[in-house]
Amino acid sequence: MGVMSTAAFFGRFTIDRQAPVPAYYQLQDWLMQQIDSGDLGAGASVPSERQFSEHLRISRMTVRQALDRLQRDGRLIRQQGTGTFVGRAHLVGDMSQLRGVSSELADQGRSSRTLVLGVELATPPRPVAAGLGLDPEIDAIRVRRVRSVDGEPLSFETSWLHPERCRPVLGTDLVDRSLNEVLTAQCGLDLAQGHERITATALDSYEADQLAASPGTAAFRVQRTTWDGAGRPIEVVVSVIRGDRFSFEAVLGSRDNAAARYHTPTLSAVGQ
Amino acid sequence: MGVMSTAAFFGRFTIDRQAPVPAYYQLQDWLMQQIDSGDLGAGASVPSERQFSEHLRISRMTVRQALDRLQRDGRLIRQQGTGTFVGRAHLVGDMSQLRGVSSELADQGRSSRTLVLGVELATPPRPVAAGLGLDPEIDAIRVRRVRSVDGEPLSFETSWLHPERCRPVLGTDLVDRSLNEVLTAQCGLDLAQGHERITATALDSYEADQLAASPGTAAFRVQRTTWDGAGRPIEVVVSVIRGDRFSFEAVLGSRDNAAARYHTPTLSAVGQ
Repeated sequence: MGVMSTAAFFGRFTIDRQAPVPAYYQLQDWLMQQIDSGDLGAGASVPSERQFSEHLRISRMTVRQALDRLQRDGRLIRQQGTGTFVGRAHLVGDMSQLRGVSSELADQGRSSRTLVLGVELATPPRPVAAGLGLDPEIDAIRVRRVRSVDGEPLSFETSWLHPERCRPVLGTDLVDRSLNEVLTAQCGLDLAQGHERITATALDSYEADQLAASPGTAAFRVQRTTWDGAGRPIEVVVSVIRGDRFSFEAVLGSRDNAAARYHTPTLSAVGQ
Repeated sequence: MGVMSTAAFFGRFTIDRQAPVPAYYQLQDWLMQQIDSGDLGAGASVPSERQFSEHLRISRMTVRQALDRLQRDGRLIRQQGTGTFVGRAHLVGDMSQLRGVSSELADQGRSSRTLVLGVELATPPRPVAAGLGLDPEIDAIRVRRVRSVDGEPLSFETSWLHPERCRPVLGTDLVDRSLNEVLTAQCGLDLAQGHERITATALDSYEADQLAASPGTAAFRVQRTTWDGAGRPIEVVVSVIRGDRFSFEAVLGSRDNAAARYHTPTLSAVGQ
């Protein structure tokens, strides 16, 4: 990246030395805006540490501190000897969407793969049994899967299914199939409503292993309960999703007109 | 926690030694279900490492591995010499909600405080200028705040406001006030619609400092753009929210009836 393009890269951005916010954080925040908005698209190269340091008159240590977090969250990829590049655009899921990720993806022509780790009857944790409306001594169907999108592992999912309503799942090959589709087509269920809770976490060593990521990578843990049109519980699903590859989006309305402004779900790559 | 209550604590839970999923992960997942559902409420004590180890016939190292992540995410608090307890219930925000967190909280009688770090005209990053519909050489109003709920810092927020539409903000004391309320009452704006993007991250050292948390704590980064009823951009806000204290919730509908099932937003403590 030459001198001219460095100037263009920075535009009006300078470090505010009077600000209560440290220099590294100002730079990090500014870069994140450029990347998340797609102004700096996937694969774009960013200036070298030296260029950052000279242009902004900050130490290289300050530059490194700013870049470290962006690398940790997958927004920047440092390649030894080549430079630093913007990482792949995140996949984006609509938070208000009940359809499974794979069905969202299929609609958009993205390639989605499913690795099935196990399908069996097992003892659900008490809250899961309660969520499914089962007596605590009744086993439920447990499905453990790793979902990949465009060849990259994205989520590790444990689904607990109602043992009667979802029984056909036990005899169905789930590899590369949407579980929602099986529930609809094979089990004749109408997945009408759901409740979702999203927490922030970091991949632990087992999840990282399953998702081909580094332990400690930022992640979402999503717990969803789904009911049919009659309000009968169908499934309780826990998904651990790589935060360096995925974001949630939502369209918001004010209290009174939220419903009216509700929009059609999308899952798409952003940036670029 | 005595022998009897330990048996009651575990109920039917056992470690499945044939499972592809490691023992520590099975235990961690099971505990997380008990805590997130509120079955184990805030302050509840959990068995000792020795009790876990003896009851489940796993090594104490395996127990520690399971508990570590739960501690890191704030679900368990280990107190030297006293034992291990369930952490405070998460605050829960509705993801589809356009109102600010503080106005959601106020409606529920929660105490919300706002520390104002700075209010000034500043150069917005290009994508923020674009989001606000401003020429790149125009300054915007930048408001940096730390929001606390029930005495505990929860989020670090940087709001970029349209310099004309929001000008009265420059002369307004924002301490312990909702910015949305100021925009509505003082600036006469109608915050009608928004777009929100949520990414997973971990607090870096500066954010951790502001939020009285440990660096590396799981966190959400939320970027929201708000428009008035005429579609004119009002603000671009970036909030970094502690993931050990906060979760998002959403009610989901299937594609066809999402709007009909849209529900009233809530922000409440769960668990206990």
